[in-house]
Amino acid sequence: MTQTLDIAVVGATGTVGETLVQILEERDFPVGNLHLLASSESAGSSVLFRNKNVRVREVDEFDFSKVKLVFFAAGAAVSLSYAARAHAAGCSLIDLSGALPAEQAPQVVPEANAEVLAGLKAPFQVSSPSPSATALAVVLAPLLDLIELQYVNVTANLAVSAQGREAVTELARQTAELLNMRPLEPTFFDRQMAFNLLAQVGTPDAQGHTLLEKRLVRELRQVLKQPLLKISATCVQAPVFFGDSYSVTLQSASAVDLVKVNAALEDAPGIELVEAGDYPTAVGDAVGQDVVYVGRVRSGVDDPAELNLWLTSDNVRKGAALNAVQVAELLIKDLL
Amino acid sequence: MTQTLDIAVVGATGTVGETLVQILEERDFPVGNLHLLASSESAGSSVLFRNKNVRVREVDEFDFSKVKLVFFAAGAAVSLSYAARAHAAGCSLIDLSGALPAEQAPQVVPEANAEVLAGLKAPFQVSSPSPSATALAVVLAPLLDLIELQYVNVTANLAVSAQGREAVTELARQTAELLNMRPLEPTFFDRQMAFNLLAQVGTPDAQGHTLLEKRLVRELRQVLKQPLLKISATCVQAPVFFGDSYSVTLQSASAVDLVKVNAALEDAPGIELVEAGDYPTAVGDAVGQDVVYVGRVRSGVDDPAELNLWLTSDNVRKGAALNAVQVAELLIKDLL
Repeated sequence: MTQTLDIAVVGATGTVGETLVQILEERDFPVGNLHLLASSESAGSSVLFRNKNVRVREVDEFDFSKVKLVFFAAGAAVSLSYAARAHAAGCSLIDLSGALPAEQAPQVVPEANAEVLAGLKAPFQVSSPSPSATALAVVLAPLLDLIELQYVNVTANLAVSAQGREAVTELARQTAELLNMRPLEPTFFDRQMAFNLLAQVGTPDAQGHTLLEKRLVRELRQVLKQPLLKISATCVQAPVFFGDSYSVTLQSASAVDLVKVNAALEDAPGIELVEAGDYPTAVGDAVGQDVVYVGRVRSGVDDPAELNLWLTSDNVRKGAALNAVQVAELLIKDLL
Repeated sequence: MTQTLDIAVVGATGTVGETLVQILEERDFPVGNLHLLASSESAGSSVLFRNKNVRVREVDEFDFSKVKLVFFAAGAAVSLSYAARAHAAGCSLIDLSGALPAEQAPQVVPEANAEVLAGLKAPFQVSSPSPSATALAVVLAPLLDLIELQYVNVTANLAVSAQGREAVTELARQTAELLNMRPLEPTFFDRQMAFNLLAQVGTPDAQGHTLLEKRLVRELRQVLKQPLLKISATCVQAPVFFGDSYSVTLQSASAVDLVKVNAALEDAPGIELVEAGDYPTAVGDAVGQDVVYVGRVRSGVDDPAELNLWLTSDNVRKGAALNAVQVAELLIKDLL
């Protein structure tokens, strides 16, 4: 008889939560009872799982001792409110909010630092990094043996779906209004998002960095086990519904062997390397896929120790929901 | 009596050429006879100048000895075909195509290296750099006394209008089709441009760099008089009609004084620095304006020798047409 695991998903009605439920089904994760949880506003709706509508219940009223594993796919505030309660009830938890400190719940990207899980004890507490750190970690990890990495510069052109369904609706609405020559009245975004780029996502701190940028730097350093790695990050809001695009420059201490880099990217798990001369796009390649796409692999214009890359990744899927499920798959034998 | 100058504009029906004619009028440039020239396909149409329709004639049939100054605002092939003929006829010329070698026609951005013009003799040959190099030069020039610049990293998210009217029409058409759930059939672009980013503009060379990226590196080094400056450039096609956005990281050899940087940007010509915590956008700020907008001025997350900036610029105006007219204004006393 096959063993199963009772599971809860907090934030089940959000874009990431809903995709997470879908991926659990797609990958035949041994789910027994599935409890879908959300805030009081979203409770009462339902989400399809294995051809049945599962009703979404209020997280605040949930008895976490009913399940062995909880995915936290709502915001930071929700994780901070309920993670301790879930853990005290004996649940293992995988948090996607970035709210839990690394000492409590280390950031894990299976393709990059799965070995971290071996050092943990049940009930487990693991963090699944931000979409940006996850995509970058998948691609940089297999290169660390080939290049003496000194510096990472990344401009992340992020899809609006990372900000939820309201942001998606607003981009569509603004676009339609502009195409129909109607006056634009931004609501979700504070200015024109259609046919425009917004230079920051969220409010910057006193030094000018946003939370998302600091999270990218912190999480990528942790997952790559390079706590002092110099990283420059700019997170930009692009007028794209789904799929993130990354312009990346890596600086090595010595000349980079492009043949070896291409071979390593070709062989590494979780990566699809496109043909030389071609490039992947967020919409055309990454969306709906489980891998991070890589293209435009090239040295500097006249610096052989520089390596430039263009990455695209499904921010909801590989960037969040899939990575969390992959972590759960690695923990499953200790949970059943 | 006010003296005037007879002028020709080659490529008068293009987005840059038309804007150039408009700027000559706006800035009261002392135009005498204005000759608008284009390829045989565009000849016969007309462009408005000082409330009169000026007929566009075929460049191949033009007698360049009729004018003292020619703006070349068509492509590289046109400049290579007619620049020598114009110059032999005694015309000074300002080329916007990037086709002429620096030794023949130095790249000039008045805010950055106007002094180059003093070393030239009539009939003059000057190049106006690509929109990217122009915007970056305007902003970096006033910082060179403050920072020991070692490295520039730029991801340029470029508007489709740089590729002409067909590209603008295609972005609008693709967007409308997608919003109306109709199948997308790319024509001008080779894939979906709406709600997507394309990682390269033009065909890359064997090393993977595009002409636009190499032009940016070459022209920026020349204008800043730093022939060995290390520059990493990625030029991306963004789903934006007008206005370029630049994510820029500068590396200095020593800690950057942000107070001085902000003061220098505040004082420098051709720049509008937005308030700390805010940021400019291509559409909301730069389009239709004569200045390069700067925001998100910040150090590295933990490197005080790093300086990050976000720039937006009207690619047709400051990036091309206006810069060429500014050069002409500096030459005018020697041309009349």
